[in-house]
Amino acid sequence: MEVKEITNRDVDFAKWYTDVCKKADLVDYSLVKGSMIIRPLGYAIWEQMQSVLDQKFKETGHENVQMPMFIPESLLNIEKEHVEGFAPEVAWVTYGGKEKLEERMCVRPTSETLFCEHFKKIIHSYRDLPLLYNQWCTIVRWEKTTRPFLRSREILWQEGHTMHATKEEAKAETLRMFNIYKDFQEEYLAMPVITGKKTEKEKFAGAEETYTIEAMMYDGYALQNGTSHYFGQHFAKTFGIEFVNKDNKLETPYQTSWGVTTRMIGGLIMTHGDNNGLVLPPKIAPWKVIIIPIGDVTEKLTDIEKQLKENNITYKIDNSNKTPGFKFAEAEVKGYPIRLELGARDLENNEVTLVRRDTLEKIKVSFEDTLKTIQELLVTIQQDMYDRAKARRDSMIYDVNDYETLKDYAINKPGFMKVNWCGSEECENKIKEDTTLKTRCLIENEKVDGNCIVCGKKATTKVYLGKQY
Amino acid sequence: MEVKEITNRDVDFAKWYTDVCKKADLVDYSLVKGSMIIRPLGYAIWEQMQSVLDQKFKETGHENVQMPMFIPESLLNIEKEHVEGFAPEVAWVTYGGKEKLEERMCVRPTSETLFCEHFKKIIHSYRDLPLLYNQWCTIVRWEKTTRPFLRSREILWQEGHTMHATKEEAKAETLRMFNIYKDFQEEYLAMPVITGKKTEKEKFAGAEETYTIEAMMYDGYALQNGTSHYFGQHFAKTFGIEFVNKDNKLETPYQTSWGVTTRMIGGLIMTHGDNNGLVLPPKIAPWKVIIIPIGDVTEKLTDIEKQLKENNITYKIDNSNKTPGFKFAEAEVKGYPIRLELGARDLENNEVTLVRRDTLEKIKVSFEDTLKTIQELLVTIQQDMYDRAKARRDSMIYDVNDYETLKDYAINKPGFMKVNWCGSEECENKIKEDTTLKTRCLIENEKVDGNCIVCGKKATTKVYLGKQY
Repeated sequence: MEVKEITNRDVDFAKWYTDVCKKADLVDYSLVKGSMIIRPLGYAIWEQMQSVLDQKFKETGHENVQMPMFIPESLLNIEKEHVEGFAPEVAWVTYGGKEKLEERMCVRPTSETLFCEHFKKIIHSYRDLPLLYNQWCTIVRWEKTTRPFLRSREILWQEGHTMHATKEEAKAETLRMFNIYKDFQEEYLAMPVITGKKTEKEKFAGAEETYTIEAMMYDGYALQNGTSHYFGQHFAKTFGIEFVNKDNKLETPYQTSWGVTTRMIGGLIMTHGDNNGLVLPPKIAPWKVIIIPIGDVTEKLTDIEKQLKENNITYKIDNSNKTPGFKFAEAEVKGYPIRLELGARDLENNEVTLVRRDTLEKIKVSFEDTLKTIQELLVTIQQDMYDRAKARRDSMIYDVNDYETLKDYAINKPGFMKVNWCGSEECENKIKEDTTLKTRCLIENEKVDGNCIVCGKKATTKVYLGKQY
Repeated sequence: MEVKEITNRDVDFAKWYTDVCKKADLVDYSLVKGSMIIRPLGYAIWEQMQSVLDQKFKETGHENVQMPMFIPESLLNIEKEHVEGFAPEVAWVTYGGKEKLEERMCVRPTSETLFCEHFKKIIHSYRDLPLLYNQWCTIVRWEKTTRPFLRSREILWQEGHTMHATKEEAKAETLRMFNIYKDFQEEYLAMPVITGKKTEKEKFAGAEETYTIEAMMYDGYALQNGTSHYFGQHFAKTFGIEFVNKDNKLETPYQTSWGVTTRMIGGLIMTHGDNNGLVLPPKIAPWKVIIIPIGDVTEKLTDIEKQLKENNITYKIDNSNKTPGFKFAEAEVKGYPIRLELGARDLENNEVTLVRRDTLEKIKVSFEDTLKTIQELLVTIQQDMYDRAKARRDSMIYDVNDYETLKDYAINKPGFMKVNWCGSEECENKIKEDTTLKTRCLIENEKVDGNCIVCGKKATTKVYLGKQY
């Protein structure tokens, strides 16, 4: 199982990806098919993500709660579209100890039904609204083929569930949380993202509108990396949730839900990683600096540590008895944004060596300038990583106007295609059958002028197409 | 389901407990029998506990990881004592979607087997040790009778799992984490605890030694509130985990595990709560102060908020349109350590009213002294709560020397009994049958001088007895 070398990402991207996951000690496989073990570095990245997002959720008035992990079959069955979307991929618990359960229960694949059942009990008046809840938990979806972080049977995620007195407020909430995801991924993960509404066919089972965040991976494939749903009164009516409004009349509230998962870690890897391994953007890296002392440099090291601590720059020191060369390679595989080398010769010259992980550039700086340079580099690296990812992404977005070109590009030009579309599911299905491209999201701010790329009828919208993880 | 009044705790303690859980909005029942919904205040308390403990774990070198939530039956079966201890109370997943699983899997009741399987793959050399892991997750145990926080089918907890090169180091780790729990519960939860080793009969399935933390609730019952286990090489040998030591010889490592759960919230309620509801110790309260403005006091309120923020004192403001009397009662039910009332008359007199939740004492202080008084009160309340709990606990510990008295006390004197014991399981079982008292833990630092309270043979140890949750 041990990975000695990382496969070249331009030769076999899929193998490169699993090599990086393994060699950077992000995950390990387990005896449970389709479930992964998240190792310390992988989990530390998730904790960073949780910490930033949780703060943003709380700042916007959301409260964390914890629902049961099981859903009785009768509860899952209450909402028809929802059960059709999820029942084929749930894990069923049928025995408790030696006793067969009277009613089987699934492990939650998502928790709309559990939240609705609870909301029904606690919402009575307009004074109880808005109700802004979030839950950090593990969900289970019984996927056939799995890949670490991207598609696994157990998924760590957060799911927000909110209820509102008016349609306008619920729609605003859907977009507000969507924008928090977008800003987080661009600012912290240095991942440029494309955003918009899903088509009718691709939206969440039971939602009126699904907004999606689509990131483009190094290989041109799309990663759906967060969704925010507006449910209208759909679930609320099904579950009989009502409140007394200010005029003392009964009304049905409006609902949203929104979630992101550990899949974002997969996105980080496939956006920024290179042939030496993981490359972490400074703002999400659990440790910004890896220090590699060579020989006895204790005194100077203590001084550097003190400066980093005082300035809240997290770091690790590799004090193991491996060779410097091995340590350098390992620091690269694990993606620390900055490597700080400090050896006897550096001491003589009154300097340290800094190595940028994103460019592998070596920089010699004097002791006096070390802290300042590290602080500046962390900002520069974050921005450069975003800019490079965006330039590459933009170079792989194509305006495509005829169906033959689309079929050609689907094979020869990985990336996103912008096409005119009539809006019919028939044409959407035909594209998928002919090219394996799927609609990513509707393009809302561009003038539509032309005909559907499939049927030739007047287009009603533009849409992004792409192959997906 | 709504709780209008809280039952008097001296009349019906069990009902008082569930009333407080419901009326303080800590939990709600769900359609899933035995699983509870943890509501915002309950979850916020858990987040406080997690935050303090997680930092202590990290400071002592532990790393967080995430294992699968499922255990294949064959993996659970590898260790005989362990499977006998847990198999009767696990939930079994038998179907994934529509397909029957080839091998059924249980939802983890604890994760020793999963960690061991992983350790076997990643431990090779003494350089890989110690391996200090922790996991925050949900476990499932199919309990027959359940009560919020105390005994439920789903439990939120943390489980530490560590591997060491030597017996001494593993034993030291077992005690180190045990002491972190003890200090946390005494310092943050203001709960005096009794600590020691479990008897052979009561130790964890598969452990060589189990150390336990036992808190005494208001009704004299014991709450086992955290355990730390030393496994020796027991699991490691069963799973074939080996490492090459410094002399290039193969050795088997030594193992520990340790955990605390949301049960600690139940302990908080039953140690400090009163007939008005929850009473939270300041150091674990998510919000230290509840501000209740009466009328238009915006200007002064802004000033007070600024002072609290600058001094990192968390607070909430009740701006709802309920009556002041209702707000006061609700603040009491929810256990905020200090209530700050600010009305028109207070403004005239240049003062605010502070109310201690633990004593309900009202204190008028000038604006100038408000911050300082709050800071001092938070320290005082924390200490007073601990002192009161300890005085009550100590008054309910009895030295008992003859069996008839023990049987009498078991009925008429709720609390812990210290008795001499020969160490035989036969006598331990007889006590349980005759009195429903169970051994809490061995008493290690007291001289043993006398005969076993049951059989009259020479005692080898003293032991605490108590009824338990």
